[in-house]
Amino acid sequence: MKMPTPGFGFAVEASVGLARAGTLTTPHGSLPTPTFMPVGTQGSVKTLMPSEVAATGARIVLGNTYHLWLRPGAELIDSIGGLHAFARWPHAMLTDSGGYQAFSLAERRKLTEDGFTFQSHLDGAKKHLSPEEAMRVQGLIGADIAMQLDVCPPGLAPRPEVIAACERTTRWARRCLEARKPGQAVFGIVQGGSHVDLRTAHASELSAMMFDGLALGGYSVGEPVEVMHASLPLVTQSLDRDRPRYLMGVGTPKDLVVGIRSGIDMFDCVLPTRNARNGQALTRTGRIVIKHTRYKEDREVLDPECGCPACAGGFSRAYLRHLFIAKEILVLRLISAHNLHLYGQLVREAREAILRDAADNAQDATQKNSMRAFAAFEARWRVAGASG
Amino acid sequence: MKMPTPGFGFAVEASVGLARAGTLTTPHGSLPTPTFMPVGTQGSVKTLMPSEVAATGARIVLGNTYHLWLRPGAELIDSIGGLHAFARWPHAMLTDSGGYQAFSLAERRKLTEDGFTFQSHLDGAKKHLSPEEAMRVQGLIGADIAMQLDVCPPGLAPRPEVIAACERTTRWARRCLEARKPGQAVFGIVQGGSHVDLRTAHASELSAMMFDGLALGGYSVGEPVEVMHASLPLVTQSLDRDRPRYLMGVGTPKDLVVGIRSGIDMFDCVLPTRNARNGQALTRTGRIVIKHTRYKEDREVLDPECGCPACAGGFSRAYLRHLFIAKEILVLRLISAHNLHLYGQLVREAREAILRDAADNAQDATQKNSMRAFAAFEARWRVAGASG
Repeated sequence: MKMPTPGFGFAVEASVGLARAGTLTTPHGSLPTPTFMPVGTQGSVKTLMPSEVAATGARIVLGNTYHLWLRPGAELIDSIGGLHAFARWPHAMLTDSGGYQAFSLAERRKLTEDGFTFQSHLDGAKKHLSPEEAMRVQGLIGADIAMQLDVCPPGLAPRPEVIAACERTTRWARRCLEARKPGQAVFGIVQGGSHVDLRTAHASELSAMMFDGLALGGYSVGEPVEVMHASLPLVTQSLDRDRPRYLMGVGTPKDLVVGIRSGIDMFDCVLPTRNARNGQALTRTGRIVIKHTRYKEDREVLDPECGCPACAGGFSRAYLRHLFIAKEILVLRLISAHNLHLYGQLVREAREAILRDAADNAQDATQKNSMRAFAAFEARWRVAGASG
Repeated sequence: MKMPTPGFGFAVEASVGLARAGTLTTPHGSLPTPTFMPVGTQGSVKTLMPSEVAATGARIVLGNTYHLWLRPGAELIDSIGGLHAFARWPHAMLTDSGGYQAFSLAERRKLTEDGFTFQSHLDGAKKHLSPEEAMRVQGLIGADIAMQLDVCPPGLAPRPEVIAACERTTRWARRCLEARKPGQAVFGIVQGGSHVDLRTAHASELSAMMFDGLALGGYSVGEPVEVMHASLPLVTQSLDRDRPRYLMGVGTPKDLVVGIRSGIDMFDCVLPTRNARNGQALTRTGRIVIKHTRYKEDREVLDPECGCPACAGGFSRAYLRHLFIAKEILVLRLISAHNLHLYGQLVREAREAILRDAADNAQDATQKNSMRAFAAFEARWRVAGASG
């Protein structure tokens, strides 16, 4: 279907159970879903060239408004032609609203009905992030998709606090849609913490607005992971079927598998790149903590089946371990690329499984919703990212 | 001509004045000279993939024996198949002897007739680097070319100290040739400080030995750069014409130009990669200190004529400045690649100029040693790397 903003579209091409395979169209190209968005906090997916990010299969990345607003500044990015031109990323791009970091990173922060007041963690400069300012700044940064400013309560916040957060998020949703930059898609953000009824109600409320997509915020912020996993398939059913669904800031490979089964289309997380910089390589069969002595003489690559520059390039675990211990930057690149390749592979395989199941089910009238291929996909990724 | 070690060869194809264009043949391929060897101190040219190093034109890199010996250890590298296999570098490779770092980096170091005794700067382990041990360790690391252990006096050391260093270096030269690993080429190292007569005498002494090449050590260690520049054309004339000549640890683009004019074939230096990590990009028209405010809104690439990933990739100075200030690793890669591309371009242009002049001089009997093309090359690189 056409999304409300010209130049954008989203189509669910196949589904099995709650899981969907679709295509998201943006002014910077179309991309298959489910999709994982690597995080380019400060205008760079850490350690990697744009071409290397694209080589993982990613066709959309996320930029952090809070960081870019403070440095180098949204006006500067705009004057260079926007973040696409500035960071040389030719594909689609999404920015968050800045609210989450304004509250979690900044100093002397205060939350009122008009937004977040805080001092920059860089130089102490006083800033105010209202819904209108969030849209103005994101407009200057110029990603394809902007996020509304929202209130994100901690994971297990008491019910009244969660209710208040939902209500304010809804009021801010209206203000953000009013203040949006023409031509830029905007996603609403569903809150509700661990309360499925609040989530469901908030999802319905935001679904009635002219958002191009809907996100689930406030997950993976301190609650047990099982709570999120149990909640997702219930909440997604209250989300508009025709719009893209984005689970913010999530997660591990396991979280992606559960999210996709629950009907999520888009994910972002710093985990693959941050863990890489801590020397943790993810594989389908577990994590490799590269500094461990056990890898000292290990001539194997991280994963012989992987096509990333580290594995296809033949770099042994012994060499990666040496580089990590010797503090050589190359290893951060190699493991970052490897981990993002793993995420790319995961969403690609999920999509293939959904398409296969949907095709099989259409062929055979006796089975309506077999998830044979998807179940096989889940089994293949069962222990991915588990502690190894 | 065939070098003493099987599998190696060196041919001067053209010369004009003292400058030479040649080809060095090794078991890991042939390479054109003059050549610049990027430095891979710990088995990685810092921040870069082997393929990116090769893309700068480099077909030989240098590894530091001292660092690799201490970590991960020469035996480990040998067990993985040698440094070529360990670091995935398919082209030629040279290692230094470790003596220079053993004396400049290590703790509680002592120099005797039998070598350097010192404590590792990493863990305090007591080590002894004799001529025989330097050859054993380099044999395990397995570069194509090993360097003899030598004594390198400070830049303006008094004459008696320099004489003693030359004499001991000669004695060690004999021991290194005795202890060499079969099949590995070995270069001798001419010392003599700023004393041209000592250099000349030492060069003649080492030229009489079965070295595959001769290096000039002990330059760029504290003496005024003019002293080196004045000395080089005098000293190279005492070096065997048929063997490759290597100026160790040098230098700036200007130093390379002077060195090539003086008849040097090989160079190595950490300058292009180290300066890159300090945010200094080198261009033909001067240095760009990327953090300067003047580049804040500069949409130009570092050098519009450069074909490196940073310049051909369209990354603006404004973006590079942002990345540097935000401490993003990507900028270290981009400027490292850029600076090494500049060095690659410099030696490529030098070689072309020498070949052109030699061809022109052969055509026209009225001129015997015109350096028209070489002078134009020098003029083009006049201010490269100068403070800008």
